[in-house]
Amino acid sequence: MCAMKLLVLDTSTEWCSAALWLDGRVEARRVHAGQRHSSLLLPMIDALLREQGVALRELDAIAYGAGPGSFTGLRIACAVTQGLAFGAGLPVVGVSTLESIAEQAGAEQVLTVLDARMAEVYWAAYRRDGAGWRTVCAPQLAVPDTVTVPGEGAWVGAGNGFAALADVLPPRLVSRLVRIDDTLVPDAAAMARLAVRALERGAAVDAALAAPLYLRDKVALTVDERRARQTA
Amino acid sequence: MCAMKLLVLDTSTEWCSAALWLDGRVEARRVHAGQRHSSLLLPMIDALLREQGVALRELDAIAYGAGPGSFTGLRIACAVTQGLAFGAGLPVVGVSTLESIAEQAGAEQVLTVLDARMAEVYWAAYRRDGAGWRTVCAPQLAVPDTVTVPGEGAWVGAGNGFAALADVLPPRLVSRLVRIDDTLVPDAAAMARLAVRALERGAAVDAALAAPLYLRDKVALTVDERRARQTA
Repeated sequence: MCAMKLLVLDTSTEWCSAALWLDGRVEARRVHAGQRHSSLLLPMIDALLREQGVALRELDAIAYGAGPGSFTGLRIACAVTQGLAFGAGLPVVGVSTLESIAEQAGAEQVLTVLDARMAEVYWAAYRRDGAGWRTVCAPQLAVPDTVTVPGEGAWVGAGNGFAALADVLPPRLVSRLVRIDDTLVPDAAAMARLAVRALERGAAVDAALAAPLYLRDKVALTVDERRARQTA
Repeated sequence: MCAMKLLVLDTSTEWCSAALWLDGRVEARRVHAGQRHSSLLLPMIDALLREQGVALRELDAIAYGAGPGSFTGLRIACAVTQGLAFGAGLPVVGVSTLESIAEQAGAEQVLTVLDARMAEVYWAAYRRDGAGWRTVCAPQLAVPDTVTVPGEGAWVGAGNGFAALADVLPPRLVSRLVRIDDTLVPDAAAMARLAVRALERGAAVDAALAAPLYLRDKVALTVDERRARQTA
């Protein structure tokens, strides 16, 4: 199945993961990184490539967890991907962290909720459609109270937002879900399958065009922006 | 002079710069990037390498602006450096943003001050010592009121902190400086010279060990850290 070779990286949460898709087989590693992604990611990539005897230039593309997620974490995966892909002349593809949760949930309709900090969540809703996922509700940043099941039938809740914000998610949401898996986090191995489908759809781009999906507005102003406000 | 080839990247401020050191000659580019570093950096690197006919694998090392500076910006330069260096099998070296300001100031004793936002500054003091710089005051995060000239003689003030925080820097500091250049920002071309000296001192490390210099404590807590506080 899917004869291609991919490297996939994700540092969108406090977990750090990397995976190799090798013509349908997935080799993967994941560790709880806290804020040590920078020091853990390259050795992880190195170990995967060495163990499988694969060189970067043999890959078809590099995929990265594009978000939503940690502002800095998204930048790390994206930037390491850019550096690796640029040097090896490979295209890149960004994969949704929320969709990667759905991919792990073992259900046909999945509402994914990730902790966005500041008492907010990133959430989206997906329905399985043939080999892939159809987006029923697009990824959005919201206060937990506004998260709603978007349609009929059995919906499964998935993602660490159900654990981190259990106290503030509305009871009407929780009672509407047939099952909740609050342990799932974005993961490179699950992203590998999504990346293959994205590449088959022709979603690969030049490394320079790699960009995270933030959703949250800026976290700080630049010097120029502050000056502009002061003089406005 | 200094027969080596280096690529140098800096995204520590709203500026984005890249430089090539080619056996003593420096080719460089810099643009005001705002928050578009990710989309600007790779094309800049690509253009430099192409124009000079240099391949990544011909380099001796890759250097990056290590900080202090923008949390996310430092991560971008470090991570792109990691990706590029890993793929090409090159060592890396981090260069101080504050020292790169001193390098541009055209003086023997330089007090460098960068805007750290939140009404704080990153500052350090350097004295020229032979071919390089001796650190008189180590890089630190401080409120502007506490910045002081650390010794006798003529000191030049340099860095955008003198512009961004002109209103709150103490008059006794400003009057003690023989000249202030508040236009200087961290720059890859200046860093190239510092990187050469660092490499000659044997400061290059494996790409996995590349890390920014933050100074400011964490800007957010992880899920686990918040849980730990809640249950403490």
